[in-house]
Amino acid sequence: MNEFELIDEIIKTLGDVTLGDSVVIGPGDDSAAFRVPPGQLLVSSIDTLVEGVHFPQGAPGDLIGYRALMVSLSDLAAMGAQPAMVLVALTLASADVEWVTSLARGLRDAAQTTGVRIVGGNITKGATAINVSVHGFAPEESLLRRSGASPGDGIYVTGELGGAAAALARGDLLEFGDDLDALASRYFRPQARLDVGVELRGIASSAIDVSDGLLQDLHHLATNSAVAMAIETESLPLCPGASLEDALWGGDDYELCFTAVTELPTLSVPVARIGVVERGEGVWLDGKRVSPAGFQHFSGV
Amino acid sequence: MNEFELIDEIIKTLGDVTLGDSVVIGPGDDSAAFRVPPGQLLVSSIDTLVEGVHFPQGAPGDLIGYRALMVSLSDLAAMGAQPAMVLVALTLASADVEWVTSLARGLRDAAQTTGVRIVGGNITKGATAINVSVHGFAPEESLLRRSGASPGDGIYVTGELGGAAAALARGDLLEFGDDLDALASRYFRPQARLDVGVELRGIASSAIDVSDGLLQDLHHLATNSAVAMAIETESLPLCPGASLEDALWGGDDYELCFTAVTELPTLSVPVARIGVVERGEGVWLDGKRVSPAGFQHFSGV
Repeated sequence: MNEFELIDEIIKTLGDVTLGDSVVIGPGDDSAAFRVPPGQLLVSSIDTLVEGVHFPQGAPGDLIGYRALMVSLSDLAAMGAQPAMVLVALTLASADVEWVTSLARGLRDAAQTTGVRIVGGNITKGATAINVSVHGFAPEESLLRRSGASPGDGIYVTGELGGAAAALARGDLLEFGDDLDALASRYFRPQARLDVGVELRGIASSAIDVSDGLLQDLHHLATNSAVAMAIETESLPLCPGASLEDALWGGDDYELCFTAVTELPTLSVPVARIGVVERGEGVWLDGKRVSPAGFQHFSGV
Repeated sequence: MNEFELIDEIIKTLGDVTLGDSVVIGPGDDSAAFRVPPGQLLVSSIDTLVEGVHFPQGAPGDLIGYRALMVSLSDLAAMGAQPAMVLVALTLASADVEWVTSLARGLRDAAQTTGVRIVGGNITKGATAINVSVHGFAPEESLLRRSGASPGDGIYVTGELGGAAAALARGDLLEFGDDLDALASRYFRPQARLDVGVELRGIASSAIDVSDGLLQDLHHLATNSAVAMAIETESLPLCPGASLEDALWGGDDYELCFTAVTELPTLSVPVARIGVVERGEGVWLDGKRVSPAGFQHFSGV
């Protein structure tokens, strides 16, 4: 099977997630073409998942496809953007048609869940990796940024923390096959908080998604907003099975961490208040300053 | 140097190509945000260059950065789109700061040459590869597609063919350092035909960029337009130093190949008429049908 036949297989598997009223040109030309609603900004991010680094070698394709798309969409959620379309560039060590169509099924499922369209991509040979470039829309005045937190704002996090790290720590990520238990699901089937991101427009003063680990990501908010972030361990919403360490340092949760000055309205997922923004700098845990050291790919290199 | 310090170095090197009136949020948040002109479609493509596959191991970073951006922008040229912004995802085997800042200089040079803004990216560890997601704008009615060629249209190609393949065939791609000769420049410093793409709006009936090899790319035009493409070897504009084989089968030229029913106006680069669109199917060279077999990454796998 050559490159072009493999692409045809993928497009066939993706089915109607490549189509939509806004898709003027989908897969199969030099570029895709997409309609942008008037008055909206284009909100864009790119992410790479490398085999052996971001997912275990031998992981089922559908889980990796699902995870790759959700992880990338999480960056749109953190901006309060509505997902619109994605491009997927696959680098493949071999043309394993079965694995690749399984990957396409995972991408399709995540696209169906979130409503995003998969409008184009690329395929090439090399060490297996999945690159996803995600694009959404948001009105300029309601973008959620990392800057904007002010002293006195509450610090909040959606859902539960540490589940993905706890799953990784067990070291048996691949034993479940398609029958994932609760912890393995936290790793393989993260849910980008897209609805909450949109709900937080006009409410959150700053926001980030928890991808590198809570403390690391709080550090980004603190730096970009030029404030200190003070959190209390006892208020952290631990995922059942996760340790405090998992919740503080583990990455891959893809919850939203945000600040807000106002009382929160009822949101579509549970939210915990974990601390308060203060004058100063850095991240403070139970009154003690902690240095950022989440998941840094080149740490110490 | 950790991941975030490396990102800071890259952003510093990129300088003002990350900025612009249309850039609402550049590098440093969860996503970038960009203004889209009213009445324009978003035209988007993604490309990956893998070390050892698409560029030689040990190649100077600035050449690779330049090439990666130009190669990706070539897909916008083939649509007649005006380049607007790009996202760059780097996968790096090691945090070689010197090589990475050199790569950033190459990206910056290509961005300055074309006017595109580099608004965001990602960096991760793994086998070295560069992913570029490119985005431009075009009015819906003037998109150049692969479909649209009709019997009787002339077939044209910009510039000269085969130079990059001839450079590759010499096997001494890295001996020049920064002092490239004409052939090595064809490989390392391709020029995306962005101006010509825009000039061809309303003129070309179909278009593609010559990335996989002329015959392969003509095959795409023939298939998407449901016609036959008949070309004459004696009319092919060979790059000095390139063989006919290089021009027909070699990839990496990044010229535009297009069809048009009308006389061509004067364009900003030389254009050669290489054949004519006919009823039927496939690609015909001097009256003989040729099967497509350009650069197929998984050929025979």
